[in-house]
Amino acid sequence: MKQKQTIGIIGVGLIGGSFALSLRKKDYSAHFIGWDFNEKESGIALKRGIIDEVVEWEFLCQKSDVIILAIPVTAIVQLLPKVLDLIPENTFVFDVGSTKESICKAVSHHPKRRQFVAAHPIAGTENSGPASAIDHLFEGKLNILCDTADSEKQFVDETKYLFKCIGMETIEMSSTEHDLQLAYVSHLPHVLAYMLAATVLHQEKNEQNILNLAGSGFESTVRLAKSSPDMWTPIFMENKTHVLTAINSYIGNLEVIKNHIEKEDIHQTFSLIEEANKIRRVFNKSEKILTPIN
Amino acid sequence: MKQKQTIGIIGVGLIGGSFALSLRKKDYSAHFIGWDFNEKESGIALKRGIIDEVVEWEFLCQKSDVIILAIPVTAIVQLLPKVLDLIPENTFVFDVGSTKESICKAVSHHPKRRQFVAAHPIAGTENSGPASAIDHLFEGKLNILCDTADSEKQFVDETKYLFKCIGMETIEMSSTEHDLQLAYVSHLPHVLAYMLAATVLHQEKNEQNILNLAGSGFESTVRLAKSSPDMWTPIFMENKTHVLTAINSYIGNLEVIKNHIEKEDIHQTFSLIEEANKIRRVFNKSEKILTPIN
Repeated sequence: MKQKQTIGIIGVGLIGGSFALSLRKKDYSAHFIGWDFNEKESGIALKRGIIDEVVEWEFLCQKSDVIILAIPVTAIVQLLPKVLDLIPENTFVFDVGSTKESICKAVSHHPKRRQFVAAHPIAGTENSGPASAIDHLFEGKLNILCDTADSEKQFVDETKYLFKCIGMETIEMSSTEHDLQLAYVSHLPHVLAYMLAATVLHQEKNEQNILNLAGSGFESTVRLAKSSPDMWTPIFMENKTHVLTAINSYIGNLEVIKNHIEKEDIHQTFSLIEEANKIRRVFNKSEKILTPIN
Repeated sequence: MKQKQTIGIIGVGLIGGSFALSLRKKDYSAHFIGWDFNEKESGIALKRGIIDEVVEWEFLCQKSDVIILAIPVTAIVQLLPKVLDLIPENTFVFDVGSTKESICKAVSHHPKRRQFVAAHPIAGTENSGPASAIDHLFEGKLNILCDTADSEKQFVDETKYLFKCIGMETIEMSSTEHDLQLAYVSHLPHVLAYMLAATVLHQEKNEQNILNLAGSGFESTVRLAKSSPDMWTPIFMENKTHVLTAINSYIGNLEVIKNHIEKEDIHQTFSLIEEANKIRRVFNKSEKILTPIN
């Protein structure tokens, strides 16, 4: 009789924890073992029934059939080669980091590269830690796999299957393409929200005034500024080149509208806003159209 | 027997329309007459039962007991003096524009200045027009009155009462203070969202990709980019000085984080994000604390 599958989760925070809770919700039969840099957090994960057992990460590597790396991206870059060093030949590892290029590069020459699958489930909230983990975080969202030609097909399929189980469709692209695109639609918005919060907090020392005067528009624009520095500092570092390109192109655009306002150029300002309004079209599309995958 | 009050609404869009609908919902007894630059919109307002009658604006000025100016701010600056010219001595006018300084300045020497009350109910959505008007837009939100010493106390009280009827508390401040503060918590976020939309639409020609790759974070940050150029071009023009100051201070902050990322200064980037995280405190406060007014 085949033994129950063991799933090892390295990093039992919002993403790792929600992954386990989502599989459990679907009655996916597995023994979940977990490890976290922060012992308190693995304790919470155990107590919440996210994992069945807290173990050392080396033990986890040797005993798991599947390993999920759900730690900050710089930590993935550092730990992934060591994880691959330790795993048996039938085990595979996938990460869920928000950048992909430097992670793939870190193991490009590793003898067990084909046992690694680079994933990025596009889901999250501005909260973090196992206390924030929920069992429906991924439902209906999109997962991206990168550079799949470098992974064993069987492991790619098994990874897709796991994401399918928790309600996600998967599309594929190169890690370079991924990092460039995400720099604009995810990493840049985080930079902007952080700096909006910083600007407003610096200008307005009386926080009650911010609350009184700000409409819901401010709350929406600044929402991502609540996101954790533990997660986002590494993302900015690992995707440095594309993030800097995106920030520069954004500052260029700010200078454009600034000049129009300075010159009281009503016509140009109006046109610029009208162009920006086209973003409505994107969100008015009724649903995501997914590139078919096999 | 006292005749039914006549309320004249100049600009029957989202704000003017919602004001009338909100009063009607509270069974406020009045005859609502309206005028709009755009005949089609006044037609919609009539059809939706927002106003009882479409009239010419000059007639509206002569026949109303209360006049609400709910048009773009530059149009308020231009029309308000003419409205005051026409109104009888017991009539008062209040505007609901998002900037206050240039509006107050436009009538500072008008012989009927005391019949004008400068208001800014902080409510709105990214939609506009009478078709978007709703009867609970203002419920639980905050209204600001500016430079009230320049208005007749009786008219200030009556204005507050009308806002109270539609569910708003009122605070008071100077028009200068108002415009400075709003530049940071409202006008700047709009500039940022417009330019985020422009940057992403320019970078990513395939709009389907934006939808597929963007998490809810992008949608939240970019939401205000859907707002109408008819409303926002005038706001940027009327509050030019403060808006430019806010944009410049924001660009300065973007340069700071950019430099930290460029130098891969993990410690400084982390600190900056931690500082920005303090915005959580603002929104965690359970409710708005209102400055008591009489």
